[in-house]
Amino acid sequence: MELLENTIQRIGPLNNEYGVAAKKHLDNLTKPVGSLGMLEEIAERLAIITENKSPFIDKKVIFTFAGDHGVTAEGVSAYPKEVTAQMALNFIRGGAAINVLARHAGSEVVVIDIGIDHEFGEVEGLLNMKVMRGTANLMRGPAMTREDALKCLRVGILLADGYATKGYDLFGTGDMGIGNTTASSAIAAVITGRKVPEVTGRGTGISDESFLNKVRVIEEGIRINRPDPNDAIDVLAKVGGTEIGGIAGLILGAAANRIPVVIDGLISTAGALIAYSIEPRVRHYLFAAHRSVEIGHTAMLDMLGLRPILDLNMRLGEGTGAALAMLVIEAGLRIYRDMATFGDAGVSGRTRTL
Amino acid sequence: MELLENTIQRIGPLNNEYGVAAKKHLDNLTKPVGSLGMLEEIAERLAIITENKSPFIDKKVIFTFAGDHGVTAEGVSAYPKEVTAQMALNFIRGGAAINVLARHAGSEVVVIDIGIDHEFGEVEGLLNMKVMRGTANLMRGPAMTREDALKCLRVGILLADGYATKGYDLFGTGDMGIGNTTASSAIAAVITGRKVPEVTGRGTGISDESFLNKVRVIEEGIRINRPDPNDAIDVLAKVGGTEIGGIAGLILGAAANRIPVVIDGLISTAGALIAYSIEPRVRHYLFAAHRSVEIGHTAMLDMLGLRPILDLNMRLGEGTGAALAMLVIEAGLRIYRDMATFGDAGVSGRTRTL
Repeated sequence: MELLENTIQRIGPLNNEYGVAAKKHLDNLTKPVGSLGMLEEIAERLAIITENKSPFIDKKVIFTFAGDHGVTAEGVSAYPKEVTAQMALNFIRGGAAINVLARHAGSEVVVIDIGIDHEFGEVEGLLNMKVMRGTANLMRGPAMTREDALKCLRVGILLADGYATKGYDLFGTGDMGIGNTTASSAIAAVITGRKVPEVTGRGTGISDESFLNKVRVIEEGIRINRPDPNDAIDVLAKVGGTEIGGIAGLILGAAANRIPVVIDGLISTAGALIAYSIEPRVRHYLFAAHRSVEIGHTAMLDMLGLRPILDLNMRLGEGTGAALAMLVIEAGLRIYRDMATFGDAGVSGRTRTL
Repeated sequence: MELLENTIQRIGPLNNEYGVAAKKHLDNLTKPVGSLGMLEEIAERLAIITENKSPFIDKKVIFTFAGDHGVTAEGVSAYPKEVTAQMALNFIRGGAAINVLARHAGSEVVVIDIGIDHEFGEVEGLLNMKVMRGTANLMRGPAMTREDALKCLRVGILLADGYATKGYDLFGTGDMGIGNTTASSAIAAVITGRKVPEVTGRGTGISDESFLNKVRVIEEGIRINRPDPNDAIDVLAKVGGTEIGGIAGLILGAAANRIPVVIDGLISTAGALIAYSIEPRVRHYLFAAHRSVEIGHTAMLDMLGLRPILDLNMRLGEGTGAALAMLVIEAGLRIYRDMATFGDAGVSGRTRTL
């Protein structure tokens, strides 16, 4: 896997010189120092990530990776598996939540079939990068082979490189896959080391009984597959999913290209955790869009050291949180670029004695 | 004060029929029920407030009220008083944070001189509705007379009525006034009944010593003025400010016109608390934009029963939080109006057994 290794090597450290310059500029704008809180931090991080003292965002894109999960056979979701393919079509017709919110945020949406268990034929707007037709049931054995997991990472890296070349400067991640909160909670449990019930939620909205079943399925999947917490590709293969692998690859590729990535909720953050376990430096390139209702999400954000931008009780996925957070990120950028300085505006500074 | 009484009488109760219809529509959209959390609640509330099963937002405006405070003589702020007038000019030139964020949110900004201690003469873009040249020092006596407090409310009501007539359908509130966190914390203490140190923060960023002085100034102001917690106009007059009165009036007027109002941080929420104490029904028409760093803010939001939309460590005022929150409110509206239903999109619903 030369592409993967090459990508990892391209992920550089941060140069704080850009942060110092950005902070200096921010402190000169007509507002009390630091009074715009997270908006200022965002602007500072954009300068650092892109190594540009005058960062800008011109073209935004959200990558919504879709794949199916064999584990749906265990009754872990409130929706039938067919919904993955149906929603992929809904995405390309523009009627889903991600389409509405991405339009609002001025972002494009790219829908990738990385592992849907359906043959679409030629469908305009649906990117066919299928690695397989759905994963195997992780409660009965590995979800996929190591080779397939590597293919998923490669899909994400190729997309990141391609869109970087096309001049996109802000990426978002999203997912669609009935059953994928099960895989994501499994990844969270293995990598953070927490107990399964502490990182498992209700997904699309299941009953108490189904929830207990979901926990049991994840515990059993981890028990029989024995994923190695120190080998993220092993974890991705055994208890992950194709869309999670695509997201992880996209994040690695974005970091290699110094493009900031807005990660969505539980599933995207599971992908981020895989990428982080492969190369910890990726976390410097990430913005956490929001805090999902799913409890496993917070455990993963804590491990990544990320504070989410929004907290709106959302749990939809698709990249919806990422789209909304892009609006806030852009707000931070505009503050940085468009505000007057004290000098420009003829406004007095602080009184020295206070 | 016929205008005030007439306005209060026009503030009607809510008709939940619109909420039921909105919820039914939301549950039919292609997403798990409730999975967009606060965005769905926002859409539902817009339908209820405007009594429209198909609500829309066409024209948005943020009212930034500016006024000076005699209490600045006590050294409660890190900035000199002149900054109020200087920033008002910065607003009309478009270089302040509120201008940048309102442009981002597609909102107009109206800047109102309701009590700045400066004679501007004719300045294009600055609305002259001056009630006085700055309040008196609340530590030495009442900030203003009851008559002046009523004039401030009237300014806000007239603006709300005027902009309702012009077809604006979403209002935001904002403030500028060196010293106004002192007045707002005083209002918070009197009306919520909490101790002054529990509702007082660092404003523009003062030292420990100045903070202790600020607490003492507020305590002394309350002690000598004895504002009556059951008479909001008395509280506004004795320890409030002109811009806080303008905001309170605007909120009363907005509620009377069934126009949703996005309240900003500490100062706007002090205005909202005054309006709420005059007529509790106003709270149904309010959206809390964000949770300010100022601790008094949370105490007031709790009393109003409002959950803030954003929490970004901001403490600037001007209406900056309101502008950002408008983007989220509009997101909720777009979800409601633009998403496909399960039927439209040919997507399967929930599996019955789960």
